[in-house]
Amino acid sequence: MTHKATEVTIVAEKVIQEQIVEIIERAGATGYTILEGSGKGQHARRTHERPSVAGDAFDIVKIEAILGDRAAAEQVADEVANTLFTHYSGIVYLEEVEILRRARFWR
Amino acid sequence: MTHKATEVTIVAEKVIQEQIVEIIERAGATGYTILEGSGKGQHARRTHERPSVAGDAFDIVKIEAILGDRAAAEQVADEVANTLFTHYSGIVYLEEVEILRRARFWR
Amino acid sequence: MTHKATEVTIVAEKVIQEQIVEIIERAGATGYTILEGSGKGQHARRTHERPSVAGDAFDIVKIEAILGDRAAAEQVADEVANTLFTHYSGIVYLEEVEILRRARFWR
Repeated sequence: MTHKATEVTIVAEKVIQEQIVEIIERAGATGYTILEGSGKGQHARRTHERPSVAGDAFDIVKIEAILGDRAAAEQVADEVANTLFTHYSGIVYLEEVEILRRARFWR
Repeated sequence: MTHKATEVTIVAEKVIQEQIVEIIERAGATGYTILEGSGKGQHARRTHERPSVAGDAFDIVKIEAILGDRAAAEQVADEVANTLFTHYSGIVYLEEVEILRRARFWR
Repeated sequence: MTHKATEVTIVAEKVIQEQIVEIIERAGATGYTILEGSGKGQHARRTHERPSVAGDAFDIVKIEAILGDRAAAEQVADEVANTLFTHYSGIVYLEEVEILRRARFWR
């Protein structure tokens, strides 16, 4: 039997990884996953200190967390967008998933 | 034209990677993807032999497989949860996706 | 507030990474993410020049792009399937996601 939950995914430059993780933890997530990769285009461009050429490739992190509470996932997305993406480029998106073992995703 | 399919994702410690893959293959998946990353929190904690401090960071694997048959995807999720996550922590979740080339996802 | 968008994901051998990226960029995506991993089975097998044993493990890339326009995402999926997967094995699938900051996903 599965339960609905919300996955929040943030793709950003590695430089703001710790700040993203702090936001996720404050929202009550009991865990998160960090994958390292590369990326190109607007969503991986740091904008405030070195205005890079569009299309530069960057080392990026993809950080994922699943929250049983939809509002908590939206809080993460809003806070990342409103506090970090004002100075750094990146993307944040939500997906509905079905989890097993619901209790693991609650504080 | 797309067809509905179910993606099953397992995030766990690398130590049980092979056991997860065996379960996926037994369920009839013709392929799977393994990504290596790091993680933190309950879902990446091995619980039976070294009760770690909550919040430790671990090397983890994210294993994904797409199955045309929803029941097969649920079987993978149940078996991973019931046989592996009794001794190891981890998360497993399902997502609906739309695939091209349906035949590839059937045995 | 979130907006609906479509994520297109391609899992394939690294050898066709650049061709996949070209297709994504032509469709108007402003960014994409590349994750490197391993895989096994039909979806990671190159078929035209070295017919490999089913079950071989390969180095693969997972390439993801989010497009605000569903038709553009389908165009990417179709073009990858019809031009690359005729000679190389791989999978492509679509998922509905909810994004913040819609403008970033339009050309």
